[in-house]
Amino acid sequence: MQGTVLYAPRDVRFEEREEPKIAQPTDAIIRLSATCICGSDLWPYRGVQAIAQPTPMGHEYCGIVEEVGREVRNIRPGQFVVGSFATSDNTCAICRDGYQSSCVHREFMTAAQASLLRVPLADGTLVATNDLPPEELIPSLLATSDVLGTGWFAADAANVKPGNTVVVVGDGAVGLLGALSARQMGAERIIVMSRHASRQKLAREFGATDIIAERGNDGVARIKELTNGIGADSVLECVGTQESMMQAIESTRPGGYVSYVGVPHNVSLDGEQLFYSHVHLHGGPAPVRRYLPELINLVLNGKINPGKVFDLTLPLNQVAEGYRAMDERRAIKTLLHPNGAR
Amino acid sequence: MQGTVLYAPRDVRFEEREEPKIAQPTDAIIRLSATCICGSDLWPYRGVQAIAQPTPMGHEYCGIVEEVGREVRNIRPGQFVVGSFATSDNTCAICRDGYQSSCVHREFMTAAQASLLRVPLADGTLVATNDLPPEELIPSLLATSDVLGTGWFAADAANVKPGNTVVVVGDGAVGLLGALSARQMGAERIIVMSRHASRQKLAREFGATDIIAERGNDGVARIKELTNGIGADSVLECVGTQESMMQAIESTRPGGYVSYVGVPHNVSLDGEQLFYSHVHLHGGPAPVRRYLPELINLVLNGKINPGKVFDLTLPLNQVAEGYRAMDERRAIKTLLHPNGAR
Repeated sequence: MQGTVLYAPRDVRFEEREEPKIAQPTDAIIRLSATCICGSDLWPYRGVQAIAQPTPMGHEYCGIVEEVGREVRNIRPGQFVVGSFATSDNTCAICRDGYQSSCVHREFMTAAQASLLRVPLADGTLVATNDLPPEELIPSLLATSDVLGTGWFAADAANVKPGNTVVVVGDGAVGLLGALSARQMGAERIIVMSRHASRQKLAREFGATDIIAERGNDGVARIKELTNGIGADSVLECVGTQESMMQAIESTRPGGYVSYVGVPHNVSLDGEQLFYSHVHLHGGPAPVRRYLPELINLVLNGKINPGKVFDLTLPLNQVAEGYRAMDERRAIKTLLHPNGAR
Repeated sequence: MQGTVLYAPRDVRFEEREEPKIAQPTDAIIRLSATCICGSDLWPYRGVQAIAQPTPMGHEYCGIVEEVGREVRNIRPGQFVVGSFATSDNTCAICRDGYQSSCVHREFMTAAQASLLRVPLADGTLVATNDLPPEELIPSLLATSDVLGTGWFAADAANVKPGNTVVVVGDGAVGLLGALSARQMGAERIIVMSRHASRQKLAREFGATDIIAERGNDGVARIKELTNGIGADSVLECVGTQESMMQAIESTRPGGYVSYVGVPHNVSLDGEQLFYSHVHLHGGPAPVRRYLPELINLVLNGKINPGKVFDLTLPLNQVAEGYRAMDERRAIKTLLHPNGAR
């Protein structure tokens, strides 16, 4: 089998790897229909997050089940499935409460930028469709696996409600799908902070009502202008830097809600400043499994088309170019087709 | 008139001060029935929080209205009133949303450790009772002004619900009344972290089901033992230090709720740690005005007796001894009677 391995900053290789096998009786092996590159993959790609050794990459996936372990009950070979980037038993107290991405048995997926993938805790991690979906829906179904699920969690954790004013900090794929999610949840005004024409266009397609190009204090001042000086009801922080986090907190009205869904890198929050901001703060690894059945249905019913975030599609063996395009911001997000890879 | 002024760390004086007058047409002047010393007064008293000049002290109050400005509509001379430590118009968008302590016209009260007090925005800040309350209820009514209102907000912001497991970090008056509030809200298990016998006793009276003497990592380990290894649903952080904040966050289950209601002093939260904790975080200056009508009713109907936190009562002119007793932890909270002060 061939798969993607990061050897060092900007050194991505597509190479021969050992084929995954059932290791636990609760595992499944799936043959990927599509996979993709995540914004979070760029942290180690850029060397911001160190890697200790050559690291298999990829955690977004959908595909056809090839084989299941002897204790798997709900997932069968031949089904089309989508899973979360975090595995979950979906039965523990934390899962039952909807926080499957902190399941007591959680593992973070890796090695999904390949043709075959082992998924632990298959019954609790994977969601199968009733029928094999049409080819044209694969990108949107793949999106539910992480980038849409994460944008959806951002909107949910920021308490987006019908009639709300929502701000999205970050015009990456997660931010754009945060705007789509906020629209689905009935937000009245959706302000996306972006200074890239192609992303602004997609933001508007997904439901943004206003675009703000300013950042930092100027960005906060513009938000205040648009919200009677008070700030927004809900702010989705979809970047993960100190600047973006403070921009989010300061753009929120007292009593409002800030969500943050990207791993914060070198972010430190001053307790007293947070105290007087009076905001609600919630975030973490998105519990995508909670939302998967609903999101898959929205896609299958043609209500949403989150697959539009993939503005570059490559065969999997050109994965290195996919990383380069995203790193250089030539692409919002790269979809990879395993077709042709062993 | 005589009032309390802090000149320097541990230098509290009760001295002649200018009598407050109506300064704005929305002001009221009240003659205090009782006032008290707040845990937060100890920060400047101990020199942890610097003061630039001699500073009048006190922000918890109830009393009889002496005079109102010409634009005051709902408050009349002769009424018994309780107000919040933060003034509010109670009409702006933030107030309407229940965050009166961040009202666009907010001022923080000071100079309440005196016999007379000017209260700005009287209509929006004060709540009057129908009748003059009996003397024995004055301590509990005074408690609603801040310490109970803050404990109540702590429980509310930590999403305390019937059946919940709740942890209270801090056995000061706010923490103890956080336990009382959690009990009123139907929490099943209330774990108070305390190592002082008199406070443990009061905590149990207020509704604590478990007391934990351990702190820091040991305290967190004990909480995990008591909660199937997962952590509590709701944790009330009622101290405001780095240690207490981290103890609170680490004691909470993923998806659970942490509130913090004391001004954090030198607290810094690491973004990545907070992210993986998966908690909801909410706090700030308690919007006491939101809760006052309900809390006053609970006191008048004899449902709660929060005045028990006052384990020392002194005439106002002995205010300096009141500070000393709290500083040395000889008293949980000192009530001051203006009787006899000019």
